[in-house]
Amino acid sequence: MTSAGHEVIVEDLYQRQFNPALTRAERQSYYSQDYDDSTIKKYTHQLVEAEAVVLVFPTWWFGFPAILKGWFDRVWGPGIAYDHAQDFGPIKPRLNNQKNVMAITTLGAPGWVDYAIMRRPLRRILKIAILRTCAPGCKFAMHSLYKSENLKTATVHKFTHKIVNAIGKW
Amino acid sequence: MTSAGHEVIVEDLYQRQFNPALTRAERQSYYSQDYDDSTIKKYTHQLVEAEAVVLVFPTWWFGFPAILKGWFDRVWGPGIAYDHAQDFGPIKPRLNNQKNVMAITTLGAPGWVDYAIMRRPLRRILKIAILRTCAPGCKFAMHSLYKSENLKTATVHKFTHKIVNAIGKW
Repeated sequence: MTSAGHEVIVEDLYQRQFNPALTRAERQSYYSQDYDDSTIKKYTHQLVEAEAVVLVFPTWWFGFPAILKGWFDRVWGPGIAYDHAQDFGPIKPRLNNQKNVMAITTLGAPGWVDYAIMRRPLRRILKIAILRTCAPGCKFAMHSLYKSENLKTATVHKFTHKIVNAIGKW
Repeated sequence: MTSAGHEVIVEDLYQRQFNPALTRAERQSYYSQDYDDSTIKKYTHQLVEAEAVVLVFPTWWFGFPAILKGWFDRVWGPGIAYDHAQDFGPIKPRLNNQKNVMAITTLGAPGWVDYAIMRRPLRRILKIAILRTCAPGCKFAMHSLYKSENLKTATVHKFTHKIVNAIGKW
């Protein structure tokens, strides 16, 4: 797909039967000079090349679904998304290509629980733990559709419209 | 294994080649009267029967490894860990057997980042989002070993000792 001169790649991790569990080979090479991404090269190349990433997923237990968590565990590895520091201090960014990351998600919970009780854990993890360390130059936006188990059509349309507008500004 | 009259079951999700991704059948039955746990009955039975659960895992990106997230996504399902509310309001607990849950984990990050910057997202998710809703009567304790990529043996021993003591008090 192309959109305004950009190539758009749609990846459905379920359709691809992506294996979420970090493998033994990946773990064993995690602190070596050469992280073994041999079985996921397609994904690591995509990540390194991408100027923008749009994540679309349901939030389950205030976290990523396991299959998407596995994409972060395995694909956002050392030598790809970041480099280890020599002294095991803060990791060093590698994704200097990334300009925009957007997360689009649904939650069964109402917004006040996510904000006031949970302190938006998934937003905090994406924005601070993952992006600030791996792609500090990128802009991040999160669009969360709350109480999503029972929505009026108009609410969904409004949400969709907001996202289309936001992406249109890229 | 038995310990002081209790049966202890050790489950290594990796060794069991546990599939972390919620299946199509599970998703399709998620809001029906009968959640389809047919491929994970061993795990759902264990969860319902357990008086105590000890989770041992590395924290990756301030979250569960994908394989453990999948255990929550799939095994802690409706009709097992909780019941849906009729009106899609707060879910209702079912795990009334559970007396103690302990999480034992390692993080590469230092403690101050987990506390002050991240607001302990994994502890919040386990304690509030998962246990308070599914097993409100259980006690929860979290033991986190920080800066775990580079530790002195004495630090590990101290951490182990603390856990052995804590479990001894059950």
